[in-house]
Amino acid sequence: MLLHRMTWPDVEAYLKTSRGLIVPIGSTEQHGPNGPIGTDVICPEQVAHGVGAADGVLIAPAIPFGMAQHHLAFPGTMSLKPATLLLVLKDLIGSLERHGFERIYFLNGHGGNIATVTAAFSEIYAERAASAPRLKLVNWFLGPRVRKLSRELYGDSEGSHATPSEVSLAWRAWPEAAREVEMSPKVAPKGVIRDAEDYRRQFADGRIGSDPSLSSVEHGERLYEAAVEDVRESYAEFLREA
Amino acid sequence: MLLHRMTWPDVEAYLKTSRGLIVPIGSTEQHGPNGPIGTDVICPEQVAHGVGAADGVLIAPAIPFGMAQHHLAFPGTMSLKPATLLLVLKDLIGSLERHGFERIYFLNGHGGNIATVTAAFSEIYAERAASAPRLKLVNWFLGPRVRKLSRELYGDSEGSHATPSEVSLAWRAWPEAAREVEMSPKVAPKGVIRDAEDYRRQFADGRIGSDPSLSSVEHGERLYEAAVEDVRESYAEFLREA
Amino acid sequence: MLLHRMTWPDVEAYLKTSRGLIVPIGSTEQHGPNGPIGTDVICPEQVAHGVGAADGVLIAPAIPFGMAQHHLAFPGTMSLKPATLLLVLKDLIGSLERHGFERIYFLNGHGGNIATVTAAFSEIYAERAASAPRLKLVNWFLGPRVRKLSRELYGDSEGSHATPSEVSLAWRAWPEAAREVEMSPKVAPKGVIRDAEDYRRQFADGRIGSDPSLSSVEHGERLYEAAVEDVRESYAEFLREA
Amino acid sequence: MLLHRMTWPDVEAYLKTSRGLIVPIGSTEQHGPNGPIGTDVICPEQVAHGVGAADGVLIAPAIPFGMAQHHLAFPGTMSLKPATLLLVLKDLIGSLERHGFERIYFLNGHGGNIATVTAAFSEIYAERAASAPRLKLVNWFLGPRVRKLSRELYGDSEGSHATPSEVSLAWRAWPEAAREVEMSPKVAPKGVIRDAEDYRRQFADGRIGSDPSLSSVEHGERLYEAAVEDVRESYAEFLREA
Amino acid sequence: MLLHRMTWPDVEAYLKTSRGLIVPIGSTEQHGPNGPIGTDVICPEQVAHGVGAADGVLIAPAIPFGMAQHHLAFPGTMSLKPATLLLVLKDLIGSLERHGFERIYFLNGHGGNIATVTAAFSEIYAERAASAPRLKLVNWFLGPRVRKLSRELYGDSEGSHATPSEVSLAWRAWPEAAREVEMSPKVAPKGVIRDAEDYRRQFADGRIGSDPSLSSVEHGERLYEAAVEDVRESYAEFLREA
Amino acid sequence: MLLHRMTWPDVEAYLKTSRGLIVPIGSTEQHGPNGPIGTDVICPEQVAHGVGAADGVLIAPAIPFGMAQHHLAFPGTMSLKPATLLLVLKDLIGSLERHGFERIYFLNGHGGNIATVTAAFSEIYAERAASAPRLKLVNWFLGPRVRKLSRELYGDSEGSHATPSEVSLAWRAWPEAAREVEMSPKVAPKGVIRDAEDYRRQFADGRIGSDPSLSSVEHGERLYEAAVEDVRESYAEFLREA
Repeated sequence: MLLHRMTWPDVEAYLKTSRGLIVPIGSTEQHGPNGPIGTDVICPEQVAHGVGAADGVLIAPAIPFGMAQHHLAFPGTMSLKPATLLLVLKDLIGSLERHGFERIYFLNGHGGNIATVTAAFSEIYAERAASAPRLKLVNWFLGPRVRKLSRELYGDSEGSHATPSEVSLAWRAWPEAAREVEMSPKVAPKGVIRDAEDYRRQFADGRIGSDPSLSSVEHGERLYEAAVEDVRESYAEFLREA
Repeated sequence: MLLHRMTWPDVEAYLKTSRGLIVPIGSTEQHGPNGPIGTDVICPEQVAHGVGAADGVLIAPAIPFGMAQHHLAFPGTMSLKPATLLLVLKDLIGSLERHGFERIYFLNGHGGNIATVTAAFSEIYAERAASAPRLKLVNWFLGPRVRKLSRELYGDSEGSHATPSEVSLAWRAWPEAAREVEMSPKVAPKGVIRDAEDYRRQFADGRIGSDPSLSSVEHGERLYEAAVEDVRESYAEFLREA
Repeated sequence: MLLHRMTWPDVEAYLKTSRGLIVPIGSTEQHGPNGPIGTDVICPEQVAHGVGAADGVLIAPAIPFGMAQHHLAFPGTMSLKPATLLLVLKDLIGSLERHGFERIYFLNGHGGNIATVTAAFSEIYAERAASAPRLKLVNWFLGPRVRKLSRELYGDSEGSHATPSEVSLAWRAWPEAAREVEMSPKVAPKGVIRDAEDYRRQFADGRIGSDPSLSSVEHGERLYEAAVEDVRESYAEFLREA
Repeated sequence: MLLHRMTWPDVEAYLKTSRGLIVPIGSTEQHGPNGPIGTDVICPEQVAHGVGAADGVLIAPAIPFGMAQHHLAFPGTMSLKPATLLLVLKDLIGSLERHGFERIYFLNGHGGNIATVTAAFSEIYAERAASAPRLKLVNWFLGPRVRKLSRELYGDSEGSHATPSEVSLAWRAWPEAAREVEMSPKVAPKGVIRDAEDYRRQFADGRIGSDPSLSSVEHGERLYEAAVEDVRESYAEFLREA
Repeated sequence: MLLHRMTWPDVEAYLKTSRGLIVPIGSTEQHGPNGPIGTDVICPEQVAHGVGAADGVLIAPAIPFGMAQHHLAFPGTMSLKPATLLLVLKDLIGSLERHGFERIYFLNGHGGNIATVTAAFSEIYAERAASAPRLKLVNWFLGPRVRKLSRELYGDSEGSHATPSEVSLAWRAWPEAAREVEMSPKVAPKGVIRDAEDYRRQFADGRIGSDPSLSSVEHGERLYEAAVEDVRESYAEFLREA
Repeated sequence: MLLHRMTWPDVEAYLKTSRGLIVPIGSTEQHGPNGPIGTDVICPEQVAHGVGAADGVLIAPAIPFGMAQHHLAFPGTMSLKPATLLLVLKDLIGSLERHGFERIYFLNGHGGNIATVTAAFSEIYAERAASAPRLKLVNWFLGPRVRKLSRELYGDSEGSHATPSEVSLAWRAWPEAAREVEMSPKVAPKGVIRDAEDYRRQFADGRIGSDPSLSSVEHGERLYEAAVEDVRESYAEFLREA
């Protein structure tokens, strides 16, 4: 049930059976020495496609660009400003609303998007006295099964950016991107995120608190299965919400 | 050390001793049957003034309006849209930066501001390749001493909007606003925040999960002391940050 | 009748008796060698509170930041750009309108706000074919009683920025801020306002055409009484307007 | 010296002799039963051209659209919102600044533009720490010779919109537009300007306080001469400003 | 039928006979060594006036400023940014729509406007689910009779900026602006348009691919006649469009 | 050479060999009874990937959302407003520029994007006096080999929306989306594009002038090869541009 591969009469038919869909949202940004730049898109995209296949849920095309300003000192990062991302979300949600979608579930792959997506939801609610569509933001990496598994697999080496979990899940989609890179230091430092130059000074290879040399395609497969279960459950609950 | 009561030569002198200051930020919005509409401003304002008095920290005038769209179905609420609040923060931070302030600590009284303030920080960082001032957002109600005390005093009746903690602290400033109101139900329901009409349907008197009939000026005094200690500690740490 | 100290049911009750309110608006900006930076906020705020107490008029929280770009070369000034202030006013007026307020009276403390507030009113009118709330901007310092008294007290030493009138009225609220500072020259020069650097070059200590060493708390009291009378009269007339 | 009839090498040559120019700005809006819709453009345009011819001052093309929202209930009015006009002015001033113009004198024909143009000047100053061009707004209808003459000619029948002065001056340019229309009432009512529907309710034929049946081409000629003298004097003074 | 010379009752009467009008739109920008800076405005303005005279079509005042950023390295150019021009068009179209105009025909004189005007039309359509006015953009220089004639007169020396066609047509309006300038090289180089500095580097005197020394007032007259016929035909067709 | 599958050190290495890249840009919109909604994205994406594989050119992630307002009356369409798309392009181009990219080639799949992308380029050029990156917009469907082949294959049945060419090329990527649908009428009507409701009224099944029942995966393969050759040639020329 991938929106982009369907025709408009297919979508018209789908709307007779359901008023909900999932929109993956990610970011195009550095993910350390061995993580693909598209990690934050491919992770929620894969998981959403898995949910779509399992439960017949419509999946929109992934939004590939997010709020990644703090990664801009690393080549390849492509970021939207918060104010721009806010407008993008308003336009896309407005489009879906016009077709009759009433529950829009954003499956997010990037922590840096959370604040702006949340602000966008408020902006949309503010413009409608009532009758706004229901909007929900869920981060695939915070689902209960995923967190349990990543703790088992990586413990304190999971960190918070360029984590072995997300790199493993990205490699599941793109096994040819998998590579062995020696990390130095093995576990990256932690710290506070500020502007892009400061980020690169603090976190020289882009990682924060993680050791993504622990990543593997096989882990990616297990994380994928956990994430699909987490999202199936959470999406079903969203549809049931009074 | 209240900016608005000082002259510009006073501020010029202060800048020779410190490059940091605290900006209280709140919201003007309904706080249930017995909470003042200005609760979210007066709480961080009081605490900031306490820190200013204790440690000689400069305190800016409080920003009285925040992102409160979901409260707009209750009369008296005055809200900024996220995109507007974002511009306000950019202008005010830009003003302070011009004078040489390098560490700007926002002491927040309203959960609904968090996403937009965080987005604004990113927007500011995005516009400067480097050399942005350091920005920090701290919620007075999440400090360790405050949380410990509110758990002791109210347990599960604290809730998440129009809480007895914030109402008590507001009454400390405005004892004449204290009043006994019977709450029905005693503890308000919980739920998901969406648009303003939906909010009022779900939460008929404005509270979420709380019983603010437990509030008192005396509690407010104890919460005030806890909050001042929390913020003194956290601000000092912010200044020390490498 | 201070909005921020009331609860939402109090405001709901007020709206049954009146559809009007007063919103003080000021600026956070340098006011010369002896004037508090918050002068332009505390002046209309005090006067509005006096009117509220006398006539039971609802008073909104003061808007503390205005259009003060030309003062930005003096530390402590915090300014909004005109385009930002315009959005702030649209959001706040829109909030009040939603609750049923039909006559919104802005009591202003800062000449630099006049153009932008006036433009904001037009922007709001332009967005509504009809049925816009009635909006009025009044400057406390231009009321007939105030002008008469300031002429008596200061004559040509009143000037146009950091005036003895406004400093006296600010000191009435914050007597501890009162201080003797020798002015040099005694009466500041006059000139045309342009950008911030130019302003500081022309007006080295921030004053324009004034001698605020003439200020006193006692004058502040007399100006306060004159201003409250001026605004009571003008607000009553605004309510009566066909 | 009309910019639009010159070539770019002509302007390059002019810039070696002067860094100043005049930009007429008007509005396209109803002007009562006998006033042309273009009155507010053609008035400052004619006067500017007269000054250009007399003193060799460069005259930019007139800005024909201004802030006229309150006239939108009368057909033919074409208005910019304040926020749009602000951006237009920023772009045009920025263009002129880039070529080396340092003193830009706006000759205005429409009271409704004053607030927004003034706000635009502040916005431009706010974006430049220093070195902004000098900007001045002058209303042709408030010059000393013009006011004296219009008082002589029309006394209390001048009013404030669709005045006999501006209609006479417009007819000087377009004599074929002159026409006799009986006004009813002879002198239009006065009142407060609010939104467009309200305006039409209050001022049924578009005039405010005026009797433009007194207009004549011959008066237009005298007003033209007075206005050209007023502006020559005021522009010369602007160039001399330190 | 010039809107700016009519009164509002005239426009009210016109609207009973037709719901369409023509809005000339141009640009204020360099036009090479012998072309007036106002060429792109005066060309569509003349043609529109001719159509208005022939067929009783209402003609709005010309929009004199367009998107001319690439000409900003030549003195005299006054440009709007695309985002600003987009807002201008939205405001003006919105004004006309309010009066009941249903078919708005923009007669354009500047290639650089096409993208932004087209985008503005889409923005307007996007904001209305249905019932938008019909909008059309026509370039006077691309009409069939004009293209045929300019090929006859100038062949390959027509070029694409500062063309002999547009200079001739501008001189028809302003014969005193006609002048002989030797072009070097006779026919200007061609190339790709990028930013303003790059433009001046590539096209030293402002022309692209043209030889405007071939221009004459007499050619202007013939081009005028051809253009008026082209536009009469195309406007009539626009009115007939189902 | 897919940016999203590379790491940042890979991109850093690439930048030592080339300062150019290709960014596919499309739209998510109805493509008639048998065309996938993602047609306009998958077409330029496939072609770009082919060029990347052949010549080692870096390919950015495709921008999946464009200006598709006129398709919004058909379910599944997700559109950005022109003003939003303009900001998206500014942010993404700014990101790439920061990393040192100097030539950015947009390979476009959607006619409706052309105006806004062109306006965005001007906006970017306008903000930089000089030293802007070089920007180029190329439509895959207008390359010489593609046009020749589509004329051969479809003649007058190609039309202008939901064309057999683009549907064939989309099916090449997603053969499972291929399907036989009887078109009625066989060749769709032609007409002028206005707002979304009008579009659906005129073009009941979404097609304009086309007969996409002629599409096939095998045609898609031939069109792909033609398009890759067209773009290889045009990109190489872009890199060589002085």
